[in-house]
Amino acid sequence: MEFQLEHVTEILRRTPSTLNSLLRNLPDEWVLQNEGLESWSSYDVVVHLIHAEETDWISRAKIILEHGETHPFEPFDRFAMFEKSKGKSLTELLDAFEQRREGSLKELEKMCLTAQMLEKRGKHPELGMVTLGQLLATWVVHDLGHIGQVVRVMAKQYQSEVGQWQAYLPILAS
Amino acid sequence: MEFQLEHVTEILRRTPSTLNSLLRNLPDEWVLQNEGLESWSSYDVVVHLIHAEETDWISRAKIILEHGETHPFEPFDRFAMFEKSKGKSLTELLDAFEQRREGSLKELEKMCLTAQMLEKRGKHPELGMVTLGQLLATWVVHDLGHIGQVVRVMAKQYQSEVGQWQAYLPILAS
Repeated sequence: MEFQLEHVTEILRRTPSTLNSLLRNLPDEWVLQNEGLESWSSYDVVVHLIHAEETDWISRAKIILEHGETHPFEPFDRFAMFEKSKGKSLTELLDAFEQRREGSLKELEKMCLTAQMLEKRGKHPELGMVTLGQLLATWVVHDLGHIGQVVRVMAKQYQSEVGQWQAYLPILAS
Repeated sequence: MEFQLEHVTEILRRTPSTLNSLLRNLPDEWVLQNEGLESWSSYDVVVHLIHAEETDWISRAKIILEHGETHPFEPFDRFAMFEKSKGKSLTELLDAFEQRREGSLKELEKMCLTAQMLEKRGKHPELGMVTLGQLLATWVVHDLGHIGQVVRVMAKQYQSEVGQWQAYLPILAS
């Protein structure tokens, strides 16, 4: 589908309410379980989304606009912030994410991005040349991917409880 | 995780608002695109969820409670109702799903299910012996699976728009 900036903001602004609908005030056992081993719980996903909001999307957009390809992005540390969020309730984290996202969308609006600016190139430390438009499309897909992760982690808590129906539920095998 | 009836209803009652948050008033092109070939769009998923609400969950729960294993369920037709929904807007469908789900949860409450009733067995036309508890757990996982499908279908609309970032976005390969 053709990239449109209004579509990007339209989807990004919905993610806090989607996460609220899925997770807010759910019993802890649903929110804190993961998919085994070092995988993430829904709580961890929200922590990660806050961290990305603080250090990734808008910062990288600014780097592209100000420095283009001459200034590679800081590598994104996917494991940072777990320390910082320790002891916080999911409600606090969902509130924090909502506020951060609102702030990001305001910053995005202030950039008054044109089609030409969306073509502007930056340098990803591992992936190489990327454009500002690609960064924004990635932001959308990243949100959707982590919502998909949350529902998958939740679904897997009922892996055995569904009995024979497991065969008809592809999310349990994903 | 141990099956608890309150958890089932707690999750089931959230699905209409999650779908509203993801889809209501989105531009048509986001709602009507699919993953190619005969796959479903987000619109189709909502149609399917309404159909399941009308013909599957509560009806099957009643069959188990009234007839046990002596009366196999009617096979569920996953392709019915696409005719019936033709010409309806997504807004109408989301409203219809919300109402149907509310009705289902009221019916479920009226059943006053006990732990013993949840163990009661029924007969699935293809899968064989199943319990009422397994039916309810399946209802939850089915909801979550289709929410996961909606975000995946949406994410894939930006398959090319993310450029090199595709390598970091597992939802695009799923």
